[in-house]
Amino acid sequence: MPASVIPFILECEKLKAIERRTYPAGFKRRENSAEHSWSLALLAMTLIPKIDPSLDTLRILKMLILHDIVEIDAGDTFCYADQGDKAEREKLAAQRIFGMLPADLCAEFTGLWEEFEEGSTMEAAFANAMDRAMPLLQNHANQGLSWIEHGVSFDQVMARNGKIGNVSAELWKAIRERLDEAMEKGWLKKGDSHAL
Amino acid sequence: MPASVIPFILECEKLKAIERRTYPAGFKRRENSAEHSWSLALLAMTLIPKIDPSLDTLRILKMLILHDIVEIDAGDTFCYADQGDKAEREKLAAQRIFGMLPADLCAEFTGLWEEFEEGSTMEAAFANAMDRAMPLLQNHANQGLSWIEHGVSFDQVMARNGKIGNVSAELWKAIRERLDEAMEKGWLKKGDSHAL
Repeated sequence: MPASVIPFILECEKLKAIERRTYPAGFKRRENSAEHSWSLALLAMTLIPKIDPSLDTLRILKMLILHDIVEIDAGDTFCYADQGDKAEREKLAAQRIFGMLPADLCAEFTGLWEEFEEGSTMEAAFANAMDRAMPLLQNHANQGLSWIEHGVSFDQVMARNGKIGNVSAELWKAIRERLDEAMEKGWLKKGDSHAL
Repeated sequence: MPASVIPFILECEKLKAIERRTYPAGFKRRENSAEHSWSLALLAMTLIPKIDPSLDTLRILKMLILHDIVEIDAGDTFCYADQGDKAEREKLAAQRIFGMLPADLCAEFTGLWEEFEEGSTMEAAFANAMDRAMPLLQNHANQGLSWIEHGVSFDQVMARNGKIGNVSAELWKAIRERLDEAMEKGWLKKGDSHAL
């Protein structure tokens, strides 16, 4: 029955209240995880044909649409901060929230979320690269706004995001140029100086 | 080149500043068109298996991710208000914004947007039904907040949204029950009394 999914859909409205550290490019306010998820789906749609058209686009889009829903319970964890018990909190969140769906959809969505988290398939690696690339593009466009607020260093960004190069050397090159500019301009701190 | 899509992606950030008339369920603020687009993609993912698994899910998700990008130039037009020169404004917007992409992606995205607007394929009709259904679920969950603000009547809602029944009689039945309750409780005005 179609109506059986309505409680889940209304529960997922709460993702629009989960605030991330990143600001959309050109904005004075932070973005929420729902609009972030839309951006990643759009980015994937535009990049898959340029990077690897053999990828399963549908699975990537589904993963990106779902990937942050666990934050409704677990909150957004800043990627440069101590991750604490994030994995455990998110697992419980997935059980509760996807558990609101009929069994077939619960199994599908849980599987897609786990695939994204593990990042071991080609599609999951690509989806994870989108999740890394987008805030780098946004922060560069915003002259480092969120990096400066949180004292993020060039080395931290390189350590977390270098994996983008495994998905596309050309995409990583374009991002790397922006990161180099960010360090030159002082939008990223030099070295690995800051413990968040 | 992957980097060739970056200007388009950064331009699309502006969709996060386009305010709709509808409030997310349980929210005191209106929603923007980017988070709305995410909701429709999520709703489609959950409903397609329940309504018609033979539909091309990827094309529906792509249409929903793209469908409101034209509002960056053309603005959001309230569905119960005079539509004015909306079609012409949106066409120019599509030319400018999708025109920022390499030719192959520009052609694909323009085609998907036109398919959504025309609504004549099975996939476009389904995507349009998501665009109609979601604000009805949100307004019902919000005890008619946006309907009351704009003096929307039961007859207006029925005239615009009855097409949902062509996509799924069961989904329309579930929504219809909510609309009947909304009229009984005064969240929707009786009759067709209000010219917006």
